[in-house]
Amino acid sequence: METIALDSQHGYIHNKDDYLRRLRRIEGQARGLQRMVEEEKYCIDILTQVSAMTKALQSVALGLLDEHLSHCVVQAAAAGGSEAEEKVREASEAIARLVRS
Amino acid sequence: METIALDSQHGYIHNKDDYLRRLRRIEGQARGLQRMVEEEKYCIDILTQVSAMTKALQSVALGLLDEHLSHCVVQAAAAGGSEAEEKVREASEAIARLVRS
Amino acid sequence: METIALDSQHGYIHNKDDYLRRLRRIEGQARGLQRMVEEEKYCIDILTQVSAMTKALQSVALGLLDEHLSHCVVQAAAAGGSEAEEKVREASEAIARLVRS
Amino acid sequence: METIALDSQHGYIHNKDDYLRRLRRIEGQARGLQRMVEEEKYCIDILTQVSAMTKALQSVALGLLDEHLSHCVVQAAAAGGSEAEEKVREASEAIARLVRS
Repeated sequence: METIALDSQHGYIHNKDDYLRRLRRIEGQARGLQRMVEEEKYCIDILTQVSAMTKALQSVALGLLDEHLSHCVVQAAAAGGSEAEEKVREASEAIARLVRS
Repeated sequence: METIALDSQHGYIHNKDDYLRRLRRIEGQARGLQRMVEEEKYCIDILTQVSAMTKALQSVALGLLDEHLSHCVVQAAAAGGSEAEEKVREASEAIARLVRS
Repeated sequence: METIALDSQHGYIHNKDDYLRRLRRIEGQARGLQRMVEEEKYCIDILTQVSAMTKALQSVALGLLDEHLSHCVVQAAAAGGSEAEEKVREASEAIARLVRS
Repeated sequence: METIALDSQHGYIHNKDDYLRRLRRIEGQARGLQRMVEEEKYCIDILTQVSAMTKALQSVALGLLDEHLSHCVVQAAAAGGSEAEEKVREASEAIARLVRS
């Protein structure tokens, strides 16, 4: 799909550990939800956890998107040519999926 | 509406395995996202997975909420008294959190 | 729970003026957005207004839904029979549309 | 805040009529909702209209955002300097508001 430089090719490496840490916590939330269902915790309490997990996921998505715009889209625009257009189209589609999900 | 076993106090036991299966899949999606970040996959592809995972979580939440309304709220209303009011207030707050998350 | 006048068949009459006032304000926001586009205001400022308007609309929806659960669903459940089930199904579908919109 | 060229300074003029038409329709939906509340239509039917109106608004927002990224952000990036960074920050904040509203 694209040529890949040796590392940090997608520009978000400098926050990689932070994203991994947040995603591990989200994975833990998914396990916690299973435990709650297993133990038949009160439905409203489970829903509260689902909302917290959804917010955590959205926050990861917004962070990744910001990095994508800052690096990938800005670099493509600075380079000129039609790639910027393609990158923006792609980003807009991703934003639409996030807004609608 | 259904026979209720001793420890299925919150009324969603009849779908418990289905919820557990879906939550395990969501946990797997969280692990998949860590792998994608670890391997520095393309940001837009990661965002696509985040949207899919968010939708899966929302779908679990909507299912649990439907069960809660069907059982807990309807039972409280049928029993009369002020508990129904409290159950509706609680459900409305959970719905607001879902809509806003 | 409240006395119901002859034509307030859907149970939210006691807040009707409040809803009308909020919806008039939302209508005003829609006109304000047209003015902003007409005058080519800065895109980000227009988006801020769209978010405010969306939040106002959601808040109306959550209020109406709460009233619906409090009155319509609770009354159907108290009356017994299959109508409660139908009312809950309807409410769950409306909630799903709100969460996904 | 910024120097303004004589026209189409914010880059979305070529779709202006389309946005105005959509916003007029949204304004009409707000009036329709008032009529429904006035006539005490069934709550679920009102909620269906609110969801449709929210979707229409979101669609306007996503369109405006796409134009903003295509023009404003890409131009700032092509021009180089720190303005691109500022434009991306602003866009990311607008996206976060949309996702969370």
